[in-house]
Amino acid sequence: MEPVLGAAEVEAYLDEVFPQVRGRFRILELGEMRLSCEMAVTDADLRPGGTVSGPAMFTAADCAFYMLTLAMIGREALTVTTGATINFMRKPRPGPIRAEARLLKLGRSLSVGDVLLYSDGVAAPVAQASLTYSIPPKRGQGG
Amino acid sequence: MEPVLGAAEVEAYLDEVFPQVRGRFRILELGEMRLSCEMAVTDADLRPGGTVSGPAMFTAADCAFYMLTLAMIGREALTVTTGATINFMRKPRPGPIRAEARLLKLGRSLSVGDVLLYSDGVAAPVAQASLTYSIPPKRGQGG
Amino acid sequence: MEPVLGAAEVEAYLDEVFPQVRGRFRILELGEMRLSCEMAVTDADLRPGGTVSGPAMFTAADCAFYMLTLAMIGREALTVTTGATINFMRKPRPGPIRAEARLLKLGRSLSVGDVLLYSDGVAAPVAQASLTYSIPPKRGQGG
Amino acid sequence: MEPVLGAAEVEAYLDEVFPQVRGRFRILELGEMRLSCEMAVTDADLRPGGTVSGPAMFTAADCAFYMLTLAMIGREALTVTTGATINFMRKPRPGPIRAEARLLKLGRSLSVGDVLLYSDGVAAPVAQASLTYSIPPKRGQGG
Repeated sequence: MEPVLGAAEVEAYLDEVFPQVRGRFRILELGEMRLSCEMAVTDADLRPGGTVSGPAMFTAADCAFYMLTLAMIGREALTVTTGATINFMRKPRPGPIRAEARLLKLGRSLSVGDVLLYSDGVAAPVAQASLTYSIPPKRGQGG
Repeated sequence: MEPVLGAAEVEAYLDEVFPQVRGRFRILELGEMRLSCEMAVTDADLRPGGTVSGPAMFTAADCAFYMLTLAMIGREALTVTTGATINFMRKPRPGPIRAEARLLKLGRSLSVGDVLLYSDGVAAPVAQASLTYSIPPKRGQGG
Repeated sequence: MEPVLGAAEVEAYLDEVFPQVRGRFRILELGEMRLSCEMAVTDADLRPGGTVSGPAMFTAADCAFYMLTLAMIGREALTVTTGATINFMRKPRPGPIRAEARLLKLGRSLSVGDVLLYSDGVAAPVAQASLTYSIPPKRGQGG
Repeated sequence: MEPVLGAAEVEAYLDEVFPQVRGRFRILELGEMRLSCEMAVTDADLRPGGTVSGPAMFTAADCAFYMLTLAMIGREALTVTTGATINFMRKPRPGPIRAEARLLKLGRSLSVGDVLLYSDGVAAPVAQASLTYSIPPKRGQGG
């Protein structure tokens, strides 16, 4: 099942529904059930000691998985995160975060997947997240 | 076991180690293994449609549990979040988020607890989170 | 919102849908959105060194929350666990496990809650779990 | 970093520390930071309706990751699960469960990884889990 939206369309839609991250996400690759993107960090994402904050890492994982889900199902604005687990494994450098997202299940009402986060200069993933989204029922269809 | 830091000391320490949230957290209650606080929201925390974003909710839960852990153990700057799970249950109103944190385990190297998040005008909790922190070994002691 | 099933009815229904735990669960208290129960352990639940295994603790949390959800909504056999997070905090004694479950959200299609697990002789909770269930649509209603 | 134990050694060690699963796990592949194994199911693992129970799936994920961690670090009996998140995505068939485990971080005191679970006759993974283990300090070394 190929994506129904292209990279530029998905980036534009993210900017529209989450204006606070406008211009910060750039999709590197988009394929069937997989997406790779990069999030630029701002001062607001950094913590003293030269690292990226937990909430910023959460934003990277959540937005990457959101873009992947939307790419696969189209512009469903009412798609929302219902749950997320994130494990912080290594200290990231104070720079862009790369997110590698996998869609593991794309159901009628829930999508489930995971994301590995990477930081330039750190070879191994800095964090791992799993996410579950609620997908709204399609107009004209029950349940 | 009573807290070793008072509310004002904890708020000041949070501002120092996480300047991006300076002035946004106010502790309402602090007791043995429990803390209640309120996080003011800014435009950056909101999403179109009149709600608070997932990353902002994550910030509220993480900072609340961080302040509780620090209140119990003192100013250990190297205390970091190792893992977090958050379940988003109800749509919050676009206003302050109240966090009720419980410390369930305070060990030598890990602390574990949970947080319920509330939104003014919504009676039931809008989100539930569980968090695990790594606590650095004390100076002068092994492991 | 009071439970629609009583303790004996819920225990009987659990035995019917999960015969492998027949007779091992005893409800101690059942109220609005809360349930307390005890799970007897068998040799199959123990690990050398005198403790209860992780999978057995998972069973205790999952069955407690299942019984609470069913008590609130009735005998919906297609109610299934969609996700669970469990934090193991203290080593339990090799004996019965008590589970204290809270229903935090009872929606049309998802229920979310948490469970604290206790072991006789250990004052503080030995584990904390959060669970999400999918509730089937009611017959005759869309979505 | 290659494993320090071979497949047969790891299987034997699992049988020793968790006798309740004796003979049920068979390692299919073992490599650097990766392990694939199969868990045979017994009647105790099944639920009416022809499926494998949640606790049995949890056992599969937990034992797979335990064997992978032990293969990488050696026979550290005090290695214990501190946390686990599992997402149940598809209904498994009532037969063997295959687990594909990845070690994402192998630290001095914590290991973190994930596991995808598969069921014969179901092409996509039936569940995804992330796990965190506490690794005991090595004898003779501090913390």
